[in-house]
Order: sequence, then C-alpha cells, then structure tokens
Amino acid sequence: MYAVEVRDHIMIAHSFKGPLFGPAQGLHGATFVVDVAFFREELTADGVVVDIGRAHQALKATLEPLNYRNLDELPQFAGKNTTTEFLSRHIFEAMAGAARSGALGPGGEGVARIRVTLHESHVARAWFEGAVGA
Amino acid sequence: MYAVEVRDHIMIAHSFKGPLFGPAQGLHGATFVVDVAFFREELTADGVVVDIGRAHQALKATLEPLNYRNLDELPQFAGKNTTTEFLSRHIFEAMAGAARSGALGPGGEGVARIRVTLHESHVARAWFEGAVGA
Amino acid sequence: MYAVEVRDHIMIAHSFKGPLFGPAQGLHGATFVVDVAFFREELTADGVVVDIGRAHQALKATLEPLNYRNLDELPQFAGKNTTTEFLSRHIFEAMAGAARSGALGPGGEGVARIRVTLHESHVARAWFEGAVGA
Amino acid sequence: MYAVEVRDHIMIAHSFKGPLFGPAQGLHGATFVVDVAFFREELTADGVVVDIGRAHQALKATLEPLNYRNLDELPQFAGKNTTTEFLSRHIFEAMAGAARSGALGPGGEGVARIRVTLHESHVARAWFEGAVGA
Amino acid sequence: MYAVEVRDHIMIAHSFKGPLFGPAQGLHGATFVVDVAFFREELTADGVVVDIGRAHQALKATLEPLNYRNLDELPQFAGKNTTTEFLSRHIFEAMAGAARSGALGPGGEGVARIRVTLHESHVARAWFEGAVGA
Amino acid sequence: MYAVEVRDHIMIAHSFKGPLFGPAQGLHGATFVVDVAFFREELTADGVVVDIGRAHQALKATLEPLNYRNLDELPQFAGKNTTTEFLSRHIFEAMAGAARSGALGPGGEGVARIRVTLHESHVARAWFEGAVGA
Repeated sequence: MYAVEVRDHIMIAHSFKGPLFGPAQGLHGATFVVDVAFFREELTADGVVVDIGRAHQALKATLEPLNYRNLDELPQFAGKNTTTEFLSRHIFEAMAGAARSGALGPGGEGVARIRVTLHESHVARAWFEGAVGA
Repeated sequence: MYAVEVRDHIMIAHSFKGPLFGPAQGLHGATFVVDVAFFREELTADGVVVDIGRAHQALKATLEPLNYRNLDELPQFAGKNTTTEFLSRHIFEAMAGAARSGALGPGGEGVARIRVTLHESHVARAWFEGAVGA
Repeated sequence: MYAVEVRDHIMIAHSFKGPLFGPAQGLHGATFVVDVAFFREELTADGVVVDIGRAHQALKATLEPLNYRNLDELPQFAGKNTTTEFLSRHIFEAMAGAARSGALGPGGEGVARIRVTLHESHVARAWFEGAVGA
Repeated sequence: MYAVEVRDHIMIAHSFKGPLFGPAQGLHGATFVVDVAFFREELTADGVVVDIGRAHQALKATLEPLNYRNLDELPQFAGKNTTTEFLSRHIFEAMAGAARSGALGPGGEGVARIRVTLHESHVARAWFEGAVGA
Repeated sequence: MYAVEVRDHIMIAHSFKGPLFGPAQGLHGATFVVDVAFFREELTADGVVVDIGRAHQALKATLEPLNYRNLDELPQFAGKNTTTEFLSRHIFEAMAGAARSGALGPGGEGVARIRVTLHESHVARAWFEGAVGA
Repeated sequence: MYAVEVRDHIMIAHSFKGPLFGPAQGLHGATFVVDVAFFREELTADGVVVDIGRAHQALKATLEPLNYRNLDELPQFAGKNTTTEFLSRHIFEAMAGAARSGALGPGGEGVARIRVTLHESHVARAWFEGAVGA
C-alpha cells in the first residue's frame, strides 16, 4: 500500500462539557498541526498517489472554516465536545468528501483510505483512519 | 478507528548478552522517549478515546519502576536482553493491564488495541502493537 | 557560556485588537510549547547550571495560571495583545523572578540570562532573551 | 507485531514529466530523509527484530547508488517519474531483497513486512508498505 | 531582545565545484527547510515584532525564484558554490531588503537583526545572522 | 556570522553524586543527541564554513571513546558529575582541539566559536558555547 501525507495547522478556541475534562471545561484553545495521509493500492500513470499540491489545497480549504474560530459558536458542532479525536473524524469526513468529489485531482478517485492526525502538543495527538467509501 | 497517543520518557542503564550486540555488550544506557497509542472503534459519550490526562498518569505510573534504574539489576528482567523492542512489549503489557483494570478511566474499557513506541535516538526506534485482550 | 533548557506547554484562548491581525481579531486559541533556557558562566560545584527537575517545577508553576484559560479575561493582561512575543516576555519575567527568589535551587543565584521560546505551530515561534538582573 | 525502524537520508536531483507536476517539471531536487521499518511477529532468541546496526548498514548500501545523483540519468529509472512514492517502493524492493538474502543478519529471515517512508519536507512525506515475500 | 521566526521550504538542484566536495561535485539536489528569525529590541504598539502573516508572505516571495530550480543555471549564482551557508546569506540579504523596504509591514522598520537557517537534512544545517543595516 | 551544525549521538551509562540529583544518584543512562555548530565570520574560497563531511567525521571520532560506555568508569571523568552541561563542555574542548589541529579540513583554521548542544530527552537539553582560542 502506498501513502502520501501533507501537513497544515489551525488555531482555535473551544471548551468541553463534562467533569471528565477538569480545567479544560473552561474556555481555552489549541494549535492543531494536522497531517492527512491518503492511501492507494497502486500509483497513477503519473506515478503518484495524489498530487501533493492539490492535497495541500484541499486540506487548506477544509481547515479554513475552522481556523481562527471559537468552535463553541459554530452550528455544525452544537452539542458536541470538539475533542482532538472528534475533530480528527470531522476533518476525515471532509477530506473523504474531497476525494470522492474529484477535488484531489487525478488519483483521488482511487484513494482507498484516509488517516487524519491532529497533534495538540509535543506530548499528545489523536487520529482517525477509515475507508473513503463510495 | 480512532486513536489517542501520549508521550513520556525514561533514562536507564543496561547491557546486552550475545556477540550480535558488539560494543553494546558493555554497560551503557539510553533515553527512551515513549509514545503509547490507544485505539478504539467509537468515541465515548464524552467524545474521547480515553482521557489524555489519565493516559499520561497511567503511563507515568508504568514507567516509574524503570526510570533512573540499571535494568540489569531488576528481577523482572533477569536473563533477558532489555532491547528497545523487548521494552516496547513490556510497557505494552503494563498499559494493556491498565486498560483492563480501569486505570485509564471512562473509555479505557473499550480500548481495542495499544501500540507502544520507544524512540532510542534521532535515527532508531522500535514498537509493539497488539490487542488489549480480555 | 553554559545553558540548560526545559520544555512544557499551555493551551489557551485569546483574541487580538487591531486591523493588523486580520482573522486573528476573533476569539481563537493556541498551544504554546514553551522552552526556557537558563544561561550561566560557570557550573555549580555539583556540575550543573540549575537542577533540571527544579527548572521543570518552576516552569510548571509559572504556566499554571495561564493554562486552560481565556487570556482575554485575565486582569494582568487587560488592554494588552497577548501575542506570542508578548507572552514570551511575560514568562521570562516570571522565570527571572524565580531565579532571583531561589525557586530554581542551587545554581539559580548565578543564572545570568534567560531565554523563553514559544512555539505556536510547526511554522512559527517567538522568543525573548534578557538578563536576569538584580 | 514488533517493529524496528532506522533512518538515513539522500540528496538527489530529478524532474517530472506531465502537466500534473507544474513547476516540478523543471530540474530540481530533494533531500529525502528515509525511514525503514521492519515488522516481525516474534523476537529472535537475542530479543531483537533485526540488529539495528546491520539494518543501518543495509539501508546505507541501498541508498548509496542514489545519493548525490541526478535520478533522470540513472538507467533503472528510464521512463519513470521518480516521485516520493515511487522511490519509497524502489527502496522497499531493495530492503525486502536484503531481508531475503540474509543481509540483515539474524532475524532478517523472519521479517514479515517492511515500510519505507520518505520525508521530502516538513509538510510532505510518502511511504510504501508491503510483505517481504518468499 | 525579542524575536519572531517563520518557516517555509524550497526544493532545488545544484552541483559544487572543487575537490573538497567529493561526490557532491555531481548534479544532485536538496530540500532546504528555511527558518527566518527577525530580532527587535522592543515590540510595536500592536505588541509584535512583525506580523507573522506578512513575514510568511515575504519569505515565500524571496524563495519563489529559487524553488523548483537548478541553481547552476541561475545567473545570480554564476561562478558560485551554492552551499547551504552561501544560500543562508543570499536569503538573509533578500529578507533584510524586505525589512528595509517596508515589505514586512508595521514593525519591519525596527528589525535590528535577521537570522536565516537552512536545514538540509536531519543531521546538518547552516545559518547566517547579521544586522539589517540602513 | 555564518554557522554550520552537524548531528550525531551516544548512548551511555552514568550516575551522579550529591543529594541534588535525587533518583539520578543511582546508575542510569542516557541517549545524547549531539549537535555541534561551527561559527566563522567569512566563508572559505570554496564557499563553506567547514566541510560537513569532515565535521561529521571529527564529531564521530570525538564521541567514539564515550559511546556505549559507563562514564563512571572512565579515568578522564574521575571525581566529576558527567551532567549534560559538563559533557557539552567536554565535547566542546575536543571539537575546539579538532579545529586547531586541522582535523576539520579547509576552513577549520578560521572557526571562531563552537557550540555543543546535548539533547537528553524531548523536554531537556544543555549546551556550551565558547571561543576556539589559539
């Protein structure tokens, strides 16, 4: 299996609901350094999984509505704890949609799996990996 | 599949037995930067794999008996080469036990797999990944 | 000149005032990975700049009032833009105070300079370096 | 499953054919930091996956014919785009051959899978993972 | 002294003249991860050294004529070995010019020093630091 | 001022004397990732500070007597605490000697300063910087 992975980042505010979270129940924030890996069984005729430039663009477009925002105020996250693992899945769904819609350019149609990793500090990170689906 | 990974480290002395190890047969040592990843199929009602704070605590408790020690003198390692890969498995077993015993807090009961990675330098690392089991 | 540097981190929310900041005028947040370097001309009789353990404790105590907070609501920052470089200086002043007060333990009395570096993402960081003073 | 991973690097020139590549159709170059991971179900009697020293030597021998070269001029790559993912597979085949031939020393005979990761910058990387085969 | 540092990268081909360089006399290439640090005695009224966004833009504009190029063919480098340290100075001159011309936006006029670091691999890097001048 | 920096590592055992060190008074160990930076006012006629290959060789020769050793048993360290900062100075003296003796090759004669950084974990490091002298 081949993979290509690209990196970008967002800087957001949010808070968590539930005693599990202790001091993180207060409004705080995070830089998430975001890695998105695209898996493909075979390379395209050009010799790539997907074009790295288009992958970077698709990731930037996915992150733009979240960057520099207070996630507590975004309607798509109402009633949800926007934990690192939850956001990994959220970004995964958007990137899987980009693969299905052709936004990744040539090669995107054959992407079998995607893994989205969010680094929240030098000592903690989370990820979600799943099939792109039809 | 979701995952959360936390990082800590230990500083230990040890030596290896067998001509395979060349100069590492002498007493030397290592800093191991330790990453432990917890895999779970679905998030808990709080939206997490496990609480990152409790995961850090469980890792620190697991590493404490090894930290600042000469591993050659610890009875649990008698007759063993405490290689990077051997220690990855040793820490895996302790972390899997922590998951089964509830030490990870809510979410720990559903952790399906664990991967323990030990970075021994900027050019070498090892890991063990396995199912948590019953 | 000798130096010892220790690392910790904080996760905070804040916003900036002024058109220079564009979208960062909205409430957002950051993880700051914080490095504090202590400079000393000569080592102590024990052979250290300062004890790394005490340095970590002093840094944690300095960061605790900021961690998991919305900096816009803290009275000590009223009327200020809590930029990465501003916070580097703020943490520098606290660490210099720790050196002067003896909180760093043996060696702390001879720390001549301190540098505080805040990494805000994989592509941007800021720091402040200055003399500890009397 | 156990794994051991070692790191080295190459510095090469090349160009790509096809409009997909935009400005990368011109002659340019890259530093590839190369990680090779060896996977094995059980440790050897010595307690290793493979000897890290021999793994480093086998990787260096594999990279030597590529290092400081213009890949466009190497006959083995004629008619191919030497993309990061293509080179990951190329190095995988050489390392799998090293495992089969005994060049990894004791343990190499039981290596089940190999993953080769090429980091091309701080924001992009690619890898190929496959079975070693008979 | 305050500093802000931003990161970008280029991928180039080149060769070196002189027996000192051994195999690097052949046409090869490199990824240079480029860090540019701006030093300023005091913060601006906005609380910054320079705006990080504008600093990133100025760096990207400086790197654009080099990126994806064979440096051996660029007239500005005729008769020069484009070593990592030489390129650090070249990019320093361009960034110092950006500071003097106002391209960094508010704060740029007070930048006293600039340091440009080029990382050529995980085991080697070079930098040039100097005064911005009048 | 120009600089070139190269990286290598050692894996050693040692213990510390004095209550300041707490549990580190017991025999333990460390991986030290070692960076050595060479500073020079002007580049040589070849366009370098020093040759990176020779710098790597000189560093490896300096580290060889320490690597895979118990530092408590080495006569040159008798009665000393081989702390991270102490070892930074020890390696500095050896590298300064290499510069003065010509072991760095062309350019080495003009190296004005050297800085040696030892990374002992992902959260702690130390360094010594000084003039090479006559």
